[in-house]
Amino acid sequence: MALIVQKYGGVSVANCDRIKKVADRVIASKKQDTDVVVVLSAMAGETDRLIDLAGQVQPIPDPRELDVLLSTGEQTTISLFAMALRERGFKAMSFLGHQVPIETDPVHGRARIHDISTKRLRDVLDSGQIPVVAGFQGISPDGDITTLGRGGSDTTAVAVAVVLHADLCEIYTDVDGVYTTDPHICSTARKIDRISYDEMMEMASLGAKVLEIRSVEFAMRYGMPLHVRSSLTDNPGTYVVAEDETMEEVLVSGVTYSRNDARITITKVPDRPGIAASIFNPITDANIVVDMIIQNTRAGDLTDMTFTVPRRNHEEAMEIVKKVAREIGAEQVAGDKDIAKVSIVGVGMRDHSGVASKMFDILARHGINILMISTSEIKISCIIEEKYTELAVRALHDGFGLSKGAAD
Amino acid sequence: MALIVQKYGGVSVANCDRIKKVADRVIASKKQDTDVVVVLSAMAGETDRLIDLAGQVQPIPDPRELDVLLSTGEQTTISLFAMALRERGFKAMSFLGHQVPIETDPVHGRARIHDISTKRLRDVLDSGQIPVVAGFQGISPDGDITTLGRGGSDTTAVAVAVVLHADLCEIYTDVDGVYTTDPHICSTARKIDRISYDEMMEMASLGAKVLEIRSVEFAMRYGMPLHVRSSLTDNPGTYVVAEDETMEEVLVSGVTYSRNDARITITKVPDRPGIAASIFNPITDANIVVDMIIQNTRAGDLTDMTFTVPRRNHEEAMEIVKKVAREIGAEQVAGDKDIAKVSIVGVGMRDHSGVASKMFDILARHGINILMISTSEIKISCIIEEKYTELAVRALHDGFGLSKGAAD
Repeated sequence: MALIVQKYGGVSVANCDRIKKVADRVIASKKQDTDVVVVLSAMAGETDRLIDLAGQVQPIPDPRELDVLLSTGEQTTISLFAMALRERGFKAMSFLGHQVPIETDPVHGRARIHDISTKRLRDVLDSGQIPVVAGFQGISPDGDITTLGRGGSDTTAVAVAVVLHADLCEIYTDVDGVYTTDPHICSTARKIDRISYDEMMEMASLGAKVLEIRSVEFAMRYGMPLHVRSSLTDNPGTYVVAEDETMEEVLVSGVTYSRNDARITITKVPDRPGIAASIFNPITDANIVVDMIIQNTRAGDLTDMTFTVPRRNHEEAMEIVKKVAREIGAEQVAGDKDIAKVSIVGVGMRDHSGVASKMFDILARHGINILMISTSEIKISCIIEEKYTELAVRALHDGFGLSKGAAD
Repeated sequence: MALIVQKYGGVSVANCDRIKKVADRVIASKKQDTDVVVVLSAMAGETDRLIDLAGQVQPIPDPRELDVLLSTGEQTTISLFAMALRERGFKAMSFLGHQVPIETDPVHGRARIHDISTKRLRDVLDSGQIPVVAGFQGISPDGDITTLGRGGSDTTAVAVAVVLHADLCEIYTDVDGVYTTDPHICSTARKIDRISYDEMMEMASLGAKVLEIRSVEFAMRYGMPLHVRSSLTDNPGTYVVAEDETMEEVLVSGVTYSRNDARITITKVPDRPGIAASIFNPITDANIVVDMIIQNTRAGDLTDMTFTVPRRNHEEAMEIVKKVAREIGAEQVAGDKDIAKVSIVGVGMRDHSGVASKMFDILARHGINILMISTSEIKISCIIEEKYTELAVRALHDGFGLSKGAAD
């Protein structure tokens, strides 16, 4: 018999009425002679409510205790969901992280899954029941409750699908699937029918919030096909699968953007060995992630260095860099928060030249200045002024033939 | 070092502010060179909210899943409480039922504790930390979450105190202690300083809602002294301890009442062997508890039978009895819900005659007719018309010298 793992996000189980609707959907799958394992998130907003509660008691909550608190969110939805299935005449049983068990490392708040035992889940499936598993949570070697971090329920679902050798892992959300770009700023955005793991990871990390990136990594490593779809309709969504030849025919699969970066420029740096380390080590020591780095050599053994950091760390990073600049005798430190990163993603660009120059050309034609560039095998990102974000996304989406009607 | 188990009820941890206040109280004990184990209930109202949520999904919730849901209540308070202690610079660690572990039988909703492991609690205490244990919950032999039923956190606290050989188990609530009667209907009610386990059990089962009866049974069996007191003041409350000689000098310790009963009378029952069984077996089969039973023999091999059942089961019991009456040829079935049970409790009455007749006399002097009587070694209960409840309680309280000033 086929086996599907179905994961429903917080919006899909936001209240008792939605829980009942989703229960009907699970039963519809079950009636098609398919075994189903359900993985659930907390009700939408519940995790934030609990974090707020913790903050009232301890401004920086103890990580172990915060995990005990947060894990109640999924505990609530799985028990209600099992009741909803039973009310409909189907046997179901809820499973907390420690009951499966889902063993993780002891890093509270962002634990990684080490092992998932299949025995109890298998027994429950074999007896014709529907296991309802709490997403987001696990148990440490010491028996402490751990959580996997934001979006961790996706990872739970994929991991459970992998260990049970499921045929498919369905990720139900409140959108139809993965889009060629953000439909909110580009009305011609189209749903993508199939996308490769690699592309999905680039899309996810660049701001498309449909799937948690670790879950895609996990699915790719074990070749677990994902189906990202809406819990509100019966329409097929987006399959995230291993790359195949037809995918390579498409030059660009999607256009993404993010406004989460800020830029720092340090000018007239004395260009000597080890100078980059003396700038970046103090930033790294402060747990700030440096993303793009550009170095322009000037005349006279001087160099300019420009790099991006997360926007939320901009002030802190500026302070650090100003201090370093004085120490190494650099001239000036300038910051800029009003930037955006627009990217094109596609496995097709691996075997096609000219994609980058086409991107630069499209931006230039719309009068958009490129401040920084970074590329990977299947992605080209440009830092631009933030005010051009929407224009750039629409221009690239159109220019690479992604808009509705263009490809039909 | 002395060891105290402190249990705080739902009103004491009803919100973050109260949690902080209670944390200060725990720390005050800890600073007096006393080891403390904290046991907590869910926030006041939370259990009812969760039961309502379950009812929206499954009108008669699955017992296993309901326990998964309800146990989130204590999970929330213990994690927040541990955070509050940590914010105050004291190391604390929360423990769920499965983490202690508190092993119970598999009867969901009213599980009984089989065993409590002391190893982890001991380790945490020995390292100078404060364990914060979830009341009300345990784990079944199959690893399922169980709950102990209403008031179960008291039982958890006493059981934890017993296994850890604590010196005292403090039950913090929103009242000052155990009163000679309900202060809401008798303004001269006094707080009792010391009361025996036996008396407390009679008081608890007769409507004084301060302590869950199973927890008193447990404390009595293992000789664990209890101290019932308010979390809002520093005043001593009521010690519940083994009976001693001074207690026997007091004839009556308290007056209790309940309005939870209803009466059923079946008249002109043919008086033959087995007739009682043919009436009461169908009632028992419907899981209805019969409390008092009175039988009056008439002339001509006929008898009248009167008994009480819980008021919530009155209609159902009436239906059953009417059916039986037809079958056995009894004349008539009459019901009465407007009754109350008033009781006097005291270990002193064991060795003093005349207590019962004094009670009847006091009621008679106030024109209160006694409908039924039942007695035990340390308790006398009378069924009266409900409208006389307050009058009867005040008259008995006064008549047995319990009122303020009377004993001073």
